[in-house]
Amino acid sequence: MSGKERLPVRGAQGDLLRLVATGHAESRAELARLSGLAASSVSLRVEELIGAGLLVEEGAGTSRGGRRPRRLQVSPTAGLLAVADLGARHARLGLLDLSGTPLVVEERPCDITLGPEATLDWVADAFDELLLVHGPPGVPLRGIGTGIPGPVDPADGRVVSPSRMPGWNNFPVAEYLGARYDLPVLVENDANLMAVGEARAWPGCDNLMVLKAGSGIGCGVIVDGRLHRGRGAAGDISHVRVRSDSSVVCSCGHPDCLEAYASGAALMGALAEQGIAVRRPADVVAAVNDGVPEATALVRNAGRLIGEVLTVLVNFLNPDAIVVGGSLSTAEPLISSIRAAVYERCLPLATRDLEIAVTRAGPDAALLGAGSLLLDAVLT
Amino acid sequence: MSGKERLPVRGAQGDLLRLVATGHAESRAELARLSGLAASSVSLRVEELIGAGLLVEEGAGTSRGGRRPRRLQVSPTAGLLAVADLGARHARLGLLDLSGTPLVVEERPCDITLGPEATLDWVADAFDELLLVHGPPGVPLRGIGTGIPGPVDPADGRVVSPSRMPGWNNFPVAEYLGARYDLPVLVENDANLMAVGEARAWPGCDNLMVLKAGSGIGCGVIVDGRLHRGRGAAGDISHVRVRSDSSVVCSCGHPDCLEAYASGAALMGALAEQGIAVRRPADVVAAVNDGVPEATALVRNAGRLIGEVLTVLVNFLNPDAIVVGGSLSTAEPLISSIRAAVYERCLPLATRDLEIAVTRAGPDAALLGAGSLLLDAVLT
Repeated sequence: MSGKERLPVRGAQGDLLRLVATGHAESRAELARLSGLAASSVSLRVEELIGAGLLVEEGAGTSRGGRRPRRLQVSPTAGLLAVADLGARHARLGLLDLSGTPLVVEERPCDITLGPEATLDWVADAFDELLLVHGPPGVPLRGIGTGIPGPVDPADGRVVSPSRMPGWNNFPVAEYLGARYDLPVLVENDANLMAVGEARAWPGCDNLMVLKAGSGIGCGVIVDGRLHRGRGAAGDISHVRVRSDSSVVCSCGHPDCLEAYASGAALMGALAEQGIAVRRPADVVAAVNDGVPEATALVRNAGRLIGEVLTVLVNFLNPDAIVVGGSLSTAEPLISSIRAAVYERCLPLATRDLEIAVTRAGPDAALLGAGSLLLDAVLT
Repeated sequence: MSGKERLPVRGAQGDLLRLVATGHAESRAELARLSGLAASSVSLRVEELIGAGLLVEEGAGTSRGGRRPRRLQVSPTAGLLAVADLGARHARLGLLDLSGTPLVVEERPCDITLGPEATLDWVADAFDELLLVHGPPGVPLRGIGTGIPGPVDPADGRVVSPSRMPGWNNFPVAEYLGARYDLPVLVENDANLMAVGEARAWPGCDNLMVLKAGSGIGCGVIVDGRLHRGRGAAGDISHVRVRSDSSVVCSCGHPDCLEAYASGAALMGALAEQGIAVRRPADVVAAVNDGVPEATALVRNAGRLIGEVLTVLVNFLNPDAIVVGGSLSTAEPLISSIRAAVYERCLPLATRDLEIAVTRAGPDAALLGAGSLLLDAVLT
């Protein structure tokens, strides 16, 4: 198993390492241009980073006349990031290198209703196992990142008033994981992580809304190219009151929240009431694909309700794109109903060039986002 | 009457003039620190700006030993900005100096339903009259700014699909005024201007929603300290569908838009139906203050509906404050109903430190915002 170690960088070294890790720079010249540092200063720090085993310079021996081509990369042995994306019943867990490339990703069943200690111990044990099995020898762990399906206070990595997470309210997730690892820890709402991961797949879209349609409903917001956190709950749409003929009390105690009608959990409950057995959101998608009319009608209604909430936000924010991810996103009637509601009801100026599409980053979007934000934390 | 003239600044001169005009810098030392330019370079450009009559240096003759205190200010003769805030039935018009301080502000009745040419000719004539009467001799006009109560495309200053503005759709307002003045022209949605003007009165609040409750309902959004324009319609909440027992068709053609129930125009219509004569939104406020129960009930309902729409946006954006301006903002039941709805229904993390308050910048907020954005346009 690999050891763990804080990344030994300071000041401008971190900025240079980040520019290489994120693919913005591949040469000393590019580093000088992007960092604004003098070429001599860049060279000195690059040599230090190479000496510390964090950067490697490739192609240095293949001169064919003229200046030798040399490409900077983060060393594959520079370190690992362990990241998790906690859902209601499943977690995705992965190891990334410092450039954010996954070495391994696994999905495992988990149960967040067991409370924070049991769940986070389980996550840490899973990280240890992944490191033991997949961690290259001698490559140290540099940081821990985890997504939580509820509001997280950005000030201290504490979960605040989550729904469907008994025992988690006010639990200091970052502190708890930090005590076990003594490494930089990132804790963030899962939809926010998904938005960060997705944003890299949408170059040119500075304003992005990323909807996570799974057991719950989450949304992450990119404004002017950056994650908008607000006070930690930004992006929440699950407790918006929707128009409905019936009246259902949501897990938050209020009547008629979007989540009570349009979340995977709500759809599973409604199908069960009609005698159709489903155990997870993917079963709802399978029922739709199998042409079960009750499932299709419910998903279509969910899409309409989500779309009606999105009309408010599209008029208000005018995003460039709405990206739909999560386990329900592959149900075609969901996307088409969302599109119908938004295009029907929004201002022309707001929808003229609006794209509404399924995820490009795929099911690992949140892990990729966690890697991206965690790299910042590790380098600061 | 004063002449008109493009501001003769270029490159870094404009940045320095802006720092002084906005009150961020009062000395050459502060300019050097904030601009990042060398002291010698700052001094050279300051001398040029003084020579051009754009900056003045005060107190240069009052040495009391040591270095003489010298305070930089924009010259009162550096130029004027003519700004207007067009409403449905009234316009506010003003002349500002380059620091954004009003020399004169007037409110005059106007009728935007006469169409863009007639309205904009009227605005320009009013500017000419204000300049003739109040413009200090020899101080040139430097730019024109106007707020429009509808969506404006930021790319070309064109009005796009406005409600209640017959004949304005696609009209190139910026081009039309530019042809008359041959000066920089700023055209922006009125609520956006109000948000920019208001933001200066809320230091420390980086995320701000500014609601304009007048004949119509508008909203401007400040995210991370900057106006969020989106595709030009950002901040629009007037055409959000609200929950209602009855069904009213909005001016946009859709049923049950917020504007159809909660705008000043809607309230006036509803009062008239009950035999209570009102001619403008201020009359609605007067009826509330006079204890007319029908008026109070209608305003309370309007506040509840606005508040329910704001809950979606507060959960989504987590602003630091919601500021309510416009002619209805002085009706106490409006604010209290908005507060009740938002605090009742929003996530705890989103409302924990949220302030909901009436305008601090007052009725000139949009003119001040226009001055601020216009100064940027003039100096670029």
